[in-house]
Amino acid sequence: MADIQWWGEEEGVGFPHVVASQQFSRKQLERLFLLATILKEKVPKGSVVDWLKGCNGAALFYEPSTRTRLSFETALNRLGATKVSSENAAEFSSAVKGESLGDTGSTMAQMADVIIMRHKTEGAARTVALRVNHKENPPAVINGGDGKGQHPTQALLDLYTIFERFGKIDGLKIAMVGDLKRGRTVRSLAYMLSKFKDIEIIFVFSRFSRMGQDVKDYLSSHGVKWSESSDLLGVSCRVDVVYMTRPQLEREWNPFKRWLMKRANRQLMMTLKIAEEMPGDSIILHPLPRNEEIAEEVDNNERAWYFRQVENGVYVRMALLLIIFNAAKAEELLASAV
Amino acid sequence: MADIQWWGEEEGVGFPHVVASQQFSRKQLERLFLLATILKEKVPKGSVVDWLKGCNGAALFYEPSTRTRLSFETALNRLGATKVSSENAAEFSSAVKGESLGDTGSTMAQMADVIIMRHKTEGAARTVALRVNHKENPPAVINGGDGKGQHPTQALLDLYTIFERFGKIDGLKIAMVGDLKRGRTVRSLAYMLSKFKDIEIIFVFSRFSRMGQDVKDYLSSHGVKWSESSDLLGVSCRVDVVYMTRPQLEREWNPFKRWLMKRANRQLMMTLKIAEEMPGDSIILHPLPRNEEIAEEVDNNERAWYFRQVENGVYVRMALLLIIFNAAKAEELLASAV
Amino acid sequence: MADIQWWGEEEGVGFPHVVASQQFSRKQLERLFLLATILKEKVPKGSVVDWLKGCNGAALFYEPSTRTRLSFETALNRLGATKVSSENAAEFSSAVKGESLGDTGSTMAQMADVIIMRHKTEGAARTVALRVNHKENPPAVINGGDGKGQHPTQALLDLYTIFERFGKIDGLKIAMVGDLKRGRTVRSLAYMLSKFKDIEIIFVFSRFSRMGQDVKDYLSSHGVKWSESSDLLGVSCRVDVVYMTRPQLEREWNPFKRWLMKRANRQLMMTLKIAEEMPGDSIILHPLPRNEEIAEEVDNNERAWYFRQVENGVYVRMALLLIIFNAAKAEELLASAV
Repeated sequence: MADIQWWGEEEGVGFPHVVASQQFSRKQLERLFLLATILKEKVPKGSVVDWLKGCNGAALFYEPSTRTRLSFETALNRLGATKVSSENAAEFSSAVKGESLGDTGSTMAQMADVIIMRHKTEGAARTVALRVNHKENPPAVINGGDGKGQHPTQALLDLYTIFERFGKIDGLKIAMVGDLKRGRTVRSLAYMLSKFKDIEIIFVFSRFSRMGQDVKDYLSSHGVKWSESSDLLGVSCRVDVVYMTRPQLEREWNPFKRWLMKRANRQLMMTLKIAEEMPGDSIILHPLPRNEEIAEEVDNNERAWYFRQVENGVYVRMALLLIIFNAAKAEELLASAV
Repeated sequence: MADIQWWGEEEGVGFPHVVASQQFSRKQLERLFLLATILKEKVPKGSVVDWLKGCNGAALFYEPSTRTRLSFETALNRLGATKVSSENAAEFSSAVKGESLGDTGSTMAQMADVIIMRHKTEGAARTVALRVNHKENPPAVINGGDGKGQHPTQALLDLYTIFERFGKIDGLKIAMVGDLKRGRTVRSLAYMLSKFKDIEIIFVFSRFSRMGQDVKDYLSSHGVKWSESSDLLGVSCRVDVVYMTRPQLEREWNPFKRWLMKRANRQLMMTLKIAEEMPGDSIILHPLPRNEEIAEEVDNNERAWYFRQVENGVYVRMALLLIIFNAAKAEELLASAV
Repeated sequence: MADIQWWGEEEGVGFPHVVASQQFSRKQLERLFLLATILKEKVPKGSVVDWLKGCNGAALFYEPSTRTRLSFETALNRLGATKVSSENAAEFSSAVKGESLGDTGSTMAQMADVIIMRHKTEGAARTVALRVNHKENPPAVINGGDGKGQHPTQALLDLYTIFERFGKIDGLKIAMVGDLKRGRTVRSLAYMLSKFKDIEIIFVFSRFSRMGQDVKDYLSSHGVKWSESSDLLGVSCRVDVVYMTRPQLEREWNPFKRWLMKRANRQLMMTLKIAEEMPGDSIILHPLPRNEEIAEEVDNNERAWYFRQVENGVYVRMALLLIIFNAAKAEELLASAV
């Protein structure tokens, strides 16, 4: 097993940094998911282990994302790490006193073993990762979302939740619904799905939220069958996964267009009626937060797996952190599972 | 002992959630106070135990209340729990991206064993508690203040401090002074006192801060003797407890009325001279922060127990947390004390 | 060894509080630096000990200074303490509800064993220290920067880094470069250097940033040789330490003057060319954050020790915390090193 890399390089940044979902090959994803599953059994909510003893994690959040931050911090807590945290790092010296992101990285490298970063600028985590690599004993940098760029741990937890339900990814049919134009998560998920075989993706869109041509071209060139539809009910009843997303109204400044988006999105609402028409073993996902695109009545349906995604997010992040700080333990857990 | 509930239900929300002070019966309060007293002796400042090992507490504060937050977090620390925290959760997805409080609760339920919540909306903690009850292995929700609603741990620590001084509550005379109209703490304390026998309450008010008729009616119907006065000196020298409060100027938008309130409040100032006229075993309480209503010269008088309230707040919160996460240990401590 | 104080008193505030760099004598500094060096070897990044077990540290930051806060919190984590933290304490009750700093201190004294405070008001930490001294079992107060006042742990880490490089302070030549008028760190460092022998300081300034006469007079009266220059290259090639600082543009409200300052500062830029002209064993320091006054190309030069300062900051703070909460362990480490 030691001859398989945990994950690879992308645009010059590789292990132990996690900056882009493309860093993970199909094999690496499957190994990560197996580890997450083991952790879910061995270190459930309400327990704590000392496998990250001595690890000091730094959460630097330049924009508010309490969900993501608390998930990472819970993962650190559960594994026995310590942490330091800033929920409003935009007032860190960089912004207020003119420091570069690189210098912030060099500074944090002297304190932290893992840096978890959220920033509004695309490539921010990559910039920091490149800088700390020059240091002795560099910390790992994990991208917790970089603006229009990536949010790799979200993509990993989405895919892991699908994997958990079906025991595989190959051959699945996935509907992606909602704001496909602005949503970062649907794009990332589409890219990751292209690493598997016989995938079929159906984009369910309103006229304000069509998936970009770049993603479609990418899928075509990687042998992924895709199509488009505006009929949520018709699509839902013949797929394995319905991945819902909210309209990213905050990224549209024109109020009239915002109103149109909101109205159009109502045509793409998951109701209990639609949910009940879905195949018995299918699931509904959502990266959260939701607005109105999934009716609350759906929550108690067995297909509603969106809060389970949150749960899985903790375990996927625990798996990454364990590999980064204590790979020997990760190998041991994986070996004992075979 | 196992046949006594730790605490009860109120408006459909019961143990292990703490959302309203009415959840506690007289017997339950006495048991809680005994546990707090044991913890004060066994786990004092400067020590730590592992009785909450594996417990992950989440402090979600939607409005700033550093005192309350740090008290809860200190309690978690002292008992060996881990924690995640947001001091500015209003920028959590809910506010910025349109998520409901219920969804925030469902999300946190996947990470935390206890959720401590402060919110400006009355009933916020109850809303979250009702939602997480649908989850498997739900976290306990503790209300850390919900706007004009409740702040039950403040009421508990107030009452515990009185109990600590006198070894009982029955038969005590309590003066409540200051902004009785707007203050949440005096109302809660009045309700809780009504569970005990032979209580006498004197409301000492200025004309801008008279206690509401609803509370007075409630007290009358529960056999609590009450009266009103504007003479702080005259009342102070014949009661066991003087409970001071600050004028809640921030809740009054009319600047002229604010000025009048401030001026009127100066008639209700606790000076060293008044303090020294009080009975030798009486105490002065204040929920803090104070403005000018207690002169600093009073701080060194033996009757000044308001900073002891802060200390007791940590132990009352430790008692609640221990019961929630490790009731067996709580029972053991109580059994060994008898 | 037990007959040497750890550190002394200044303006009525002494051990265990750390509010001013003047509290440390030359002997005390040397002992502190030895302890920091031992900790650097015994408790490096990636490790944790339990020497502060039971200690609850409170970080109260009234203005953003993530670097300083995370350094202190990392030190607490590394030594096994717990912590509570506010990165935006200006919204603590004091500001919003009219509480005094003294009351905040009295409140925190009931929860914390060490209070680390950053405030915009000069003397804030001293005010809190004086107040908590009246309490039973008072916490130590550490000044994490008080406006135009002091930032003693920054001064200590600056001096420690020089000590680490040369094994002594006596006889060194130190250039201080940049905004000498507004910079708090250069002033503190100058005062501390005056405790050592045969020090020579050269102030390298632009016409907007000349060192104040008060510091110069102080140095003269303490036998420190000082001079002034505007020639960074000429000075750099004949000193042991070049201490660079950024222009404190945020303290100058006149936009035209800001522009002049910025332009003037460009004459005082440390380039790789200048760095390479410096003596082989000399070092470049900077309190960080930097703007443009050190070119990034200098970072990889062996004389660039500014990120090492950040690293040393953690160990100096660990040394202080260990002395405060577990002096016996500090003594033991020092004894074993002799």
